[in-house]
Amino acid sequence: MYSIGIDIGGMSVKIGVVAVDGKIIGKQRVKTANTPEVVVSDIVKVVDNLLKTNDINQKDLLGIGIGCPGAVNGDKGVVDFLPNLGWENVELVKMLKQHFDLPIKISNDANVATLAEALYGSAKDYNSAIMFTLGTGVGGGIVIDKKLYEGGHSRGAELGHMTLFMNGLPCTCGRNGCVECYTSATALINQTKSAMLQNANTKMWQFVDGDIGKVDGKTAFECAKLGDKTANKLVETYVSYLAESMLNLFNIFRPEVFILGGGISAQGEYLVNKLKEYCKKFNYGYKMAPKTEITVAMLGDDAGILGASLLVR
Amino acid sequence: MYSIGIDIGGMSVKIGVVAVDGKIIGKQRVKTANTPEVVVSDIVKVVDNLLKTNDINQKDLLGIGIGCPGAVNGDKGVVDFLPNLGWENVELVKMLKQHFDLPIKISNDANVATLAEALYGSAKDYNSAIMFTLGTGVGGGIVIDKKLYEGGHSRGAELGHMTLFMNGLPCTCGRNGCVECYTSATALINQTKSAMLQNANTKMWQFVDGDIGKVDGKTAFECAKLGDKTANKLVETYVSYLAESMLNLFNIFRPEVFILGGGISAQGEYLVNKLKEYCKKFNYGYKMAPKTEITVAMLGDDAGILGASLLVR
Repeated sequence: MYSIGIDIGGMSVKIGVVAVDGKIIGKQRVKTANTPEVVVSDIVKVVDNLLKTNDINQKDLLGIGIGCPGAVNGDKGVVDFLPNLGWENVELVKMLKQHFDLPIKISNDANVATLAEALYGSAKDYNSAIMFTLGTGVGGGIVIDKKLYEGGHSRGAELGHMTLFMNGLPCTCGRNGCVECYTSATALINQTKSAMLQNANTKMWQFVDGDIGKVDGKTAFECAKLGDKTANKLVETYVSYLAESMLNLFNIFRPEVFILGGGISAQGEYLVNKLKEYCKKFNYGYKMAPKTEITVAMLGDDAGILGASLLVR
Repeated sequence: MYSIGIDIGGMSVKIGVVAVDGKIIGKQRVKTANTPEVVVSDIVKVVDNLLKTNDINQKDLLGIGIGCPGAVNGDKGVVDFLPNLGWENVELVKMLKQHFDLPIKISNDANVATLAEALYGSAKDYNSAIMFTLGTGVGGGIVIDKKLYEGGHSRGAELGHMTLFMNGLPCTCGRNGCVECYTSATALINQTKSAMLQNANTKMWQFVDGDIGKVDGKTAFECAKLGDKTANKLVETYVSYLAESMLNLFNIFRPEVFILGGGISAQGEYLVNKLKEYCKKFNYGYKMAPKTEITVAMLGDDAGILGASLLVR
């Protein structure tokens, strides 16, 4: 038996056929269309094509799982709010049900990535895991006893929207001072630019050939590794933001492992070691607290398809 | 069948026999002794006495449940850390097992209070609930699908130890800026005293007969109700601290109901209405988020015994 995993992104929609052992046996990607209607018709075409190409009958499918950014109400099968694509209240599951007589489930993209990592990736040897996806925003996922925990209406696990500094920077969610405002790649880029504008002598200027527009999530990290003082201080501050956010979740869930995904996680051991050091200094959140492992995601681009497929397995 | 519920507090240990319908059919209280050994021998005496008085045989007992403040490792049956009583690494379950051949379970006091409210109190008509106990510190409890969620090793749900202001006030847990530092009764008393010292004209001075030592968790609330401007501003700020802490948990769990317990919850509807107003302004945490009900605890003094007994039911 197989299931279909669909990973809806701002740039492309990735669709794959996944076997019950977690192997992706075929996948295809299509540019994300402007309207939900065209996205749905694209999905229908690609799924039909994938089934044909891989000689699979619809009867051999367990269902279709979808991972989607934004605020997703999994109970209703509705994308409540997806600002990047301008979607509001899109009944995606209902729309797809008109084409497929199969179980169809939808969840937030960070949720499905966490599920994939928990079952087949960097957390496969652990029962409980929490994940941050550090990209444009900060997504969150929670796995307890090897099962995805999405909160009520599957509208929880918004781990990027906990407070780090009450009354702090304005957040896209409508509140202020959220974790996302300090730990996303976007936030790190802003922090980097701000530090550069205050320090004409930092190596970071050379690193971007004097063009501040070239700053990305790696700039500060790479220059810190080169021994640049400003970059080093910047990275230490960023690590403290991230570690404090993680410690909050240790205190709530005591997960066996915490996974970092998204662009920033490319820093791998360098970042992980700094986080471990910080968390150790604060007893992993509380006196005599059990230790939580810290690691980076390993499934990369396939986590979306795989995780989505697991929603219906 | 019956179970024993034990509520260990800083001042007294309360012990009760609870029927399977949640009725406490007998209870007794004893002053909290100085050492765990004497606490255990007191418990043994009281349980024997309660069984005799109520004509119940040990064979009719399902087990013994214990609620205890501090950091409790429920998996190991150990009180890791209880600063008020000077306890560290106390193997309470093992010590009691030498006297009772019964299932014995232990959990944090806020956890068991939440379980009691979820099954028999203000959240009995809801499936998921989160609770804050606003007292000397801030305890937290999580109920999902009518079951207590304690986190890994039953060492999670430390909801008072999430960050509200990173690098803020020092917290007993070793970190800074925790929810507890701003929303506990202790914190409110400090905030009240500080506001009074800056405002010689506030009605709060008359309210405590000019004696700042008489300030308690009610002072600000009662004077705000009398229209005192300083007290009003103080209460609004306190409500914002509390509401922001709650919104963080809405974003993670989307509970059906949020329960306020502890001394501060005596403010009832007055406090609840202010919190609802604040949370509504911020869409209950996120755009188009399902609404979480807000209420106060209703079981009072009995929540500890009842909740503890439910650990072994």
